[in-house]
Amino acid sequence: MSAEARVSELKLELPPAPKPGGIYHPVLIVGNLAIVSGHGPVRTDGSIITGKVGETMNEEDAYMAARQVGLTMLATLRRELGSLDRIGRLVKTLGMVNAAPDFGNHPQVINGFSNLMVEVWGEIKGKGARSAVGMGSLPSNIAVEVEAIFELNH
Amino acid sequence: MSAEARVSELKLELPPAPKPGGIYHPVLIVGNLAIVSGHGPVRTDGSIITGKVGETMNEEDAYMAARQVGLTMLATLRRELGSLDRIGRLVKTLGMVNAAPDFGNHPQVINGFSNLMVEVWGEIKGKGARSAVGMGSLPSNIAVEVEAIFELNH
Amino acid sequence: MSAEARVSELKLELPPAPKPGGIYHPVLIVGNLAIVSGHGPVRTDGSIITGKVGETMNEEDAYMAARQVGLTMLATLRRELGSLDRIGRLVKTLGMVNAAPDFGNHPQVINGFSNLMVEVWGEIKGKGARSAVGMGSLPSNIAVEVEAIFELNH
Repeated sequence: MSAEARVSELKLELPPAPKPGGIYHPVLIVGNLAIVSGHGPVRTDGSIITGKVGETMNEEDAYMAARQVGLTMLATLRRELGSLDRIGRLVKTLGMVNAAPDFGNHPQVINGFSNLMVEVWGEIKGKGARSAVGMGSLPSNIAVEVEAIFELNH
Repeated sequence: MSAEARVSELKLELPPAPKPGGIYHPVLIVGNLAIVSGHGPVRTDGSIITGKVGETMNEEDAYMAARQVGLTMLATLRRELGSLDRIGRLVKTLGMVNAAPDFGNHPQVINGFSNLMVEVWGEIKGKGARSAVGMGSLPSNIAVEVEAIFELNH
Repeated sequence: MSAEARVSELKLELPPAPKPGGIYHPVLIVGNLAIVSGHGPVRTDGSIITGKVGETMNEEDAYMAARQVGLTMLATLRRELGSLDRIGRLVKTLGMVNAAPDFGNHPQVINGFSNLMVEVWGEIKGKGARSAVGMGSLPSNIAVEVEAIFELNH
C-alpha cells in the first residue's frame, strides 16, 4: 500500500505545512536524497506545542508532540514533493527533545515520531538510523524538533 | 557572479582559517559533497567569540557571532578547496546556539550565518536545509557553532 | 593492515553490540554510506557509563567513556556488516557530550572516540569531519553519545 493510501486509511490529519522560520528551504533534494529541515510540532489549528520535557511537560505529552512533529513533516513533504509516494524510505532522523537536565527517556519520546513513520512506510522502509537526544533549548520553546533524510524512489 | 567575486565585491574580511581543535579533518569530501566540521566564530585577530546567548550575550551580538562563523567557514573552505568557486551550492546546515535554557530565538541568531551564505551564493544556491537549535554548552564557551554540507560543482 | 587485523593486534575488547533502544536501525546503508545511529558507552559487562561531564564526571573519565562509545560502535558495525573490513573510511562524526552548562572541553572528550577510529583505520581513513558539542541531557544519563557516517569499500 502506498504512503498516501496509508495516510488516508489511517485518517491521519495533517496540520498546515509551516512556512520556514528563517533563511532555509524546508526540503532540499540532492541526488536521490530529500534533506528535511528541523520541524517542530504544529497543531491542526496552526499553533505550536511548547514545553520542557521533565519540567513543564510529561513524557506522554512529549510522545504526542513528537508524533505531531511527524504529521507536520508529512505536510511539508507532501507540499514540497507533490506526493508522499515519491519517497522510497526513511534514511536518518535526528530527534531533539527540549528536556530538563536530568531527563533520560528521549528514545521513548522520539518513538512518537518514529512509530508514525512506520505506520506510513512500514517496518522496513519506515525505520531509519536515529539519534534521540536532549537539547538545552529549542526555538520558541517547542517541545520536540526533528530533522530527517529520506531517500526518493528511483 | 562567482562566489570569490562576491566575496571581493562585498569586501568580506575573512579571519585566519582555524586549525582543527581535535582529531578530525576541517573538510572531508565524499562523492561530490564537502562535509564541513563544526566551526566557531573566529575574529580577524584569531580570537574567538564566547558567550551564552540569553544570559551573557544578547541576540544581536549572537547574530553577528553566527555571521562570523560563516566568515570562518569561508576561510576554511577557501584553504581546503583552493577556491570558493568549486562550491555549487549549500545543502544543509546544523546551527547550534550556546543558549540559556529559556532562550527561543535560535532561528534569528543562525540567520546571521544563513544570510552570509545567501550574500555569497545567492537566494537559491546559498539556501540549504537547516536546523537551528540550543546546546547546553559548546567548546571553549563559543557562542555559536555551525556544521554544514556543500555540494561541489561537477 | 586491515581493520579487523588491527582490532586483534591492539587486543581491543568489544562490548556486546547493544539492541536498539527505540524504533530505528542501528546501521542503515544508503548508496555506499553506512549511517550509524547514536551510540552510548556500553561496558564489556553490558552496563552503561553514566554521568554529566563537569558535574558528576571529570574530563579524563569522559574521554574513556567516548572511547568506550567507539568500541560499542565497532561491535555494532561488525554485527551489522559482518566485518569491519567492509568499511573504507570514516566520513563524519557528531560527538555529543552530556555536559554541565559551563563545560568547554568537548573536543578533548570526543578525541577518545576519534583516537580509537585512527588506531583502527589509520591517520587518513580513520579521521572524518566532526562536531563535538554539549547536550542538555542524554538518554539514561549516558556521558557521551556519538553518531557517525562511514563509507563502505567499493
